Amino acid sequence: MKLAIIFFYIILFSFFVTAIIKSKELKNEFNLMPFPAQIVPGLGEFRLADSFAIAVSPDASGRLVAAANRAFQRLAGRTGLFFSQGKVQPEQSLSNASMIISCQRRGALKLNEDESYELKITLEKIELTAETDIGVLRGLETFLQLLQSDAKGYFFPTVIIKDQPRFPWRGLLIDACRHFMPVEVIKRNLDGMAAVKLNVLHWHLTEDQGFRVECRSFPGLHEQGSDGFYYTQAQIKEVIDYAADRGIRVMPEFDIPGHTTSWFVAYPELASAPGPYTIERKWGIKDPAMDPTREETYQFLDTFFKEMTQLFPDDYLHIGGDEVNGKQWDANPEILAFMKAQGIPDNHDLQSNFNKRVLQILAKYGKKLVGWDEILHPDMPNNIVIQSWRGREALIESAQKGYQGILSNGYYIDLIQPTDFHYLTDPLPEGSPLTDAEKRHILGGEATMWSEYVSFETIDSRIWPRTAAIAERLWSPAPLQDIDDMYRRLDIISFRLEELGLLHEKNYEMMLRRLTNNQNIQPLKTLVDVLEPVKHYRRGEFNDYTSFSPLTRVVDVARPDAKVARIFKKLVSDYLAPESKTSQQRSAIEKWLELWKENHAALSEIIKASPVLREIESLSKDLSLVASIGLAALESIEQRQPTNPNWVQEKLDILEKAKNPRGETELMILPAIEQLVNHSEK
Amino acid sequence: MKLAIIFFYIILFSFFVTAIIKSKELKNEFNLMPFPAQIVPGLGEFRLADSFAIAVSPDASGRLVAAANRAFQRLAGRTGLFFSQGKVQPEQSLSNASMIISCQRRGALKLNEDESYELKITLEKIELTAETDIGVLRGLETFLQLLQSDAKGYFFPTVIIKDQPRFPWRGLLIDACRHFMPVEVIKRNLDGMAAVKLNVLHWHLTEDQGFRVECRSFPGLHEQGSDGFYYTQAQIKEVIDYAADRGIRVMPEFDIPGHTTSWFVAYPELASAPGPYTIERKWGIKDPAMDPTREETYQFLDTFFKEMTQLFPDDYLHIGGDEVNGKQWDANPEILAFMKAQGIPDNHDLQSNFNKRVLQILAKYGKKLVGWDEILHPDMPNNIVIQSWRGREALIESAQKGYQGILSNGYYIDLIQPTDFHYLTDPLPEGSPLTDAEKRHILGGEATMWSEYVSFETIDSRIWPRTAAIAERLWSPAPLQDIDDMYRRLDIISFRLEELGLLHEKNYEMMLRRLTNNQNIQPLKTLVDVLEPVKHYRRGEFNDYTSFSPLTRVVDVARPDAKVARIFKKLVSDYLAPESKTSQQRSAIEKWLELWKENHAALSEIIKASPVLREIESLSKDLSLVASIGLAALESIEQRQPTNPNWVQEKLDILEKAKNPRGETELMILPAIEQLVNHSEK
Repeated sequence: MKLAIIFFYIILFSFFVTAIIKSKELKNEFNLMPFPAQIVPGLGEFRLADSFAIAVSPDASGRLVAAANRAFQRLAGRTGLFFSQGKVQPEQSLSNASMIISCQRRGALKLNEDESYELKITLEKIELTAETDIGVLRGLETFLQLLQSDAKGYFFPTVIIKDQPRFPWRGLLIDACRHFMPVEVIKRNLDGMAAVKLNVLHWHLTEDQGFRVECRSFPGLHEQGSDGFYYTQAQIKEVIDYAADRGIRVMPEFDIPGHTTSWFVAYPELASAPGPYTIERKWGIKDPAMDPTREETYQFLDTFFKEMTQLFPDDYLHIGGDEVNGKQWDANPEILAFMKAQGIPDNHDLQSNFNKRVLQILAKYGKKLVGWDEILHPDMPNNIVIQSWRGREALIESAQKGYQGILSNGYYIDLIQPTDFHYLTDPLPEGSPLTDAEKRHILGGEATMWSEYVSFETIDSRIWPRTAAIAERLWSPAPLQDIDDMYRRLDIISFRLEELGLLHEKNYEMMLRRLTNNQNIQPLKTLVDVLEPVKHYRRGEFNDYTSFSPLTRVVDVARPDAKVARIFKKLVSDYLAPESKTSQQRSAIEKWLELWKENHAALSEIIKASPVLREIESLSKDLSLVASIGLAALESIEQRQPTNPNWVQEKLDILEKAKNPRGETELMILPAIEQLVNHSEK
Repeated sequence: MKLAIIFFYIILFSFFVTAIIKSKELKNEFNLMPFPAQIVPGLGEFRLADSFAIAVSPDASGRLVAAANRAFQRLAGRTGLFFSQGKVQPEQSLSNASMIISCQRRGALKLNEDESYELKITLEKIELTAETDIGVLRGLETFLQLLQSDAKGYFFPTVIIKDQPRFPWRGLLIDACRHFMPVEVIKRNLDGMAAVKLNVLHWHLTEDQGFRVECRSFPGLHEQGSDGFYYTQAQIKEVIDYAADRGIRVMPEFDIPGHTTSWFVAYPELASAPGPYTIERKWGIKDPAMDPTREETYQFLDTFFKEMTQLFPDDYLHIGGDEVNGKQWDANPEILAFMKAQGIPDNHDLQSNFNKRVLQILAKYGKKLVGWDEILHPDMPNNIVIQSWRGREALIESAQKGYQGILSNGYYIDLIQPTDFHYLTDPLPEGSPLTDAEKRHILGGEATMWSEYVSFETIDSRIWPRTAAIAERLWSPAPLQDIDDMYRRLDIISFRLEELGLLHEKNYEMMLRRLTNNQNIQPLKTLVDVLEPVKHYRRGEFNDYTSFSPLTRVVDVARPDAKVARIFKKLVSDYLAPESKTSQQRSAIEKWLELWKENHAALSEIIKASPVLREIESLSKDLSLVASIGLAALESIEQRQPTNPNWVQEKLDILEKAKNPRGETELMILPAIEQLVNHSEK
């Protein structure tokens, strides 16, 4: 039986995607994320057996061969099959293999490189073709996501997929400064990035709180600015190679002229105020900034960038440029005199002058300059790239002015916002005021993992799985906006990401074990499952955080977008929708509420032996209390006995009070219980 | 209130330890492993508050300061306390701090370096003193193990501990060849080693299956012999530094003249039979061996060891020397002619000649030679170290002949034997035939993590927690032999090891999730909790393993020394002991049996969607079946209605059949159920 091949044309494209997404059948069949640009399902399936073999042509790049072997191992790992092939090796006789991988050329790690691929699965054969080996890498991830199973064994559905990214710049920023992230953290997250087709690691390497790269020209930078926590140049190269092997560019960020306290510990002469300086231990916008009026600053930066541009091969280099408060400049008479003499009206212009000098240095070393939206200034030439963090307006403005731009506003994953918020943030939303030519300036976006409140233990749970949804936004066709289906696929992708060594699931129970002092974790898990950390940077309001503060408390274990709370919320809103109440829904809601109601008794015993949990004891009590309220409301809804307004108001007051964060966390089921209470009055 | 200080003298020492171990009160108070040489409990406790501060003297080594900071961070991590000190820094004013750490000098990473320490905790102060900073590191781990909590908060019991190791060589061998172990695997296991006071990483770096070190003199070694999986020299240095920072020596092993297939891929001229060679993909004793009769072999090795002895600073270098089957030598006429000409009677002598030449080379580069017990030969001088793997007799023999020795026989953790077996294996057991002078030749022992059947995902669960018990055997006084208390403490240490990033607990559920294809893992967990992999190297009897075979199946998830089976066995034997039957015991046994009896129904549903589990389906069925048998036996014991002999025999036959391994795993509860059945007849 031949696969019925259907051709879709570009003009039908957006209709096509929508049609597919709405098809329940397809939804259940394909657990792909990012969802491909075009997918045509066939009939029947390719059954996987231990005779399965992958062939790559003799001229395949080392990167392609290594990626094929990794995919092969992941397939063996999932299925337990002892493939007779063992190892994928470049060979002449391609035709006998069950899977044939080919491409035209080795891809370059450059912006706009071709990442497209075509994956064709028939009953007997799998073909993966691409222009570049990077396209093959993207296709291999799709291939692995297609694996399914039934009682008879493992198989791939027959399918034709033609796929390419919507945006060429799809990044993840990792801040290795506020908290240092050892090489293995970066590597496992590079594997996660590759799995969801991200292609830029934006490595934030210098900050007030730490200078994280070995610098041979000025060794005081890492020796005195890092507490010993920095990457050696050998490690940097190792990471760059590892990323390159996964088709990922590595763009370093050296944030100047502000966010530079750690530079000044060894080199106070660079600063705009006299030292001495010590490494900054607290978060926020700090005063220290480089002196943009001294020639020595630029001599230093020239030597510094000469070394760093050799270390980092990417075409782009990020100079930060954000959050300079100008206080050191305002207080320095020499700087003020310089500004007067040069006719520089304000600090923004002063910084722009600085940026232009840095731009010259980078240009000399063959690099393009990227900076946060503060660097946007009429004086700056438009061959720089603006990364928009303060708002999407900046991105639009910069595109209109002819600058290339990357969106990060809306992708700040450190702010603990829900996945759907990020998912629906589009660098080029429908109704964008930009012209087509201006739209082409929008290169893509980047999720930003700032690390004030994350450690090597918790960073994975802040990045994943939410970043997979951002990756889909940046790769897949714009009309893809079905939130329920996104969450359904996200669960599966999240599970699959564990295969790459990511700790977002694993560390949850480990941290619960530590918090309970190795007692039964279940009661604590029941509570934490419905908690989220407070949003944005509110944690700093509750505790006096420094670089050394523990990141092992309940707030650190609690995860963004608490899944149980999300499920409960959906259950309640489905149940309360007109004409939809089913006993199944009711009993599911009741089951959760009963669980929560009983939980405090068990958890309070655990807390007695684990003082670190005392800070959430009243929250645990509140969970039981609000669950009781929910049960009462449910009962009256069910019995069709409206509650009286006084009761409703009294309970709403209690619910309101329960919103008060404890241990920097908040109960996420309150709105759903409010809904029940409000509804009970009707 | 002052701590009542009691002095113990060396003459009372063995009595003292026994007395303490038998004290129930102390047992419950101290969760230490390895248990210290001397411990004197005081009255009251040192309460931990956020004002807690650690002082180290201005001349403290960088290693000491870093270790103190790691300990400080672990303390913050467990307690959630925001210590006002932040970071431990060398300082003048020691007296104000609540904990004062001091030592006389920086320790050398040499055999027999002083690792002793004294830890004194009073109501208001903690003092940790040692001769060397390495002693301080050992003491810091004890300090952390002493942390306790109650409803009021965290505290340390007042105590005086004087501690030093029983043996100076306490090692863990990691085989990075059969399966490559990335740098992070080595690093996290070094942290685990430090936590239980091990001090030698024996790094097995070359094998038939892979050559794992970058070699600049002969780059073909790693380029053609490793599939790309090798450590760069930068990584080797990184690991050595990391280990040194934890007071751990790194001894490399380059196994020659056998186990060398991977060397011959690029350098076939080294072999005793003509090539070409490819990397070996299967396990076992292979024919390829270096040609010990050609001068070029020694020229090669001279250059090779010149480079490697510079890379690895340790005084000792391991040359393997095991399992040369001599087939290539027997088949090579030139080698036979050489032997005849030189009057070399047999292959053992030929290898000994080879070893002597290697010894000369190593001596030239300032290294001492270590080898497996095959290298023992009358011709070898006794300044070499023999590592005994084939039996303890070899260790005794070598000590009697004046060789220094290390025990590994009995510590082969890859053989999946229970912890108590390893724990009771003593390099110098009571009744040893050795004289006191000979006893001093026994340097200690090493757990050996051979990696035929372990991957980077499973290695932690094979090493930990069992290796902590071996570490105690090598560190603590010999009389310490209470198995129940060892297991009690092992559970706690195992939990604490997670803090160091070890995956022995975390990967269990992750791998169960993968096996169930993200379905509910509970039914599978219930089964796997009572499974162990088949012992020794029996896995190879069931499947045709190669380097590429999946290590993700049930057998890989199942852990050595299955805890639930051990608990159940103890329950049953306690219950069946004369005059001890309690209803509590009976109901605990019944609860387990009921759980297992019902389990298959749920698990068989899971298996339908996860074909990788089909191989254990009949085992799951057997678990239910044998649980029913256990319940019937229990019932008749309880009712004092003896079963009839036919029934007993019939059931014993079923239990016997259930012992048949499936999926390379075996049910560990069968002996206990047999006991129940046998008892039911009485």
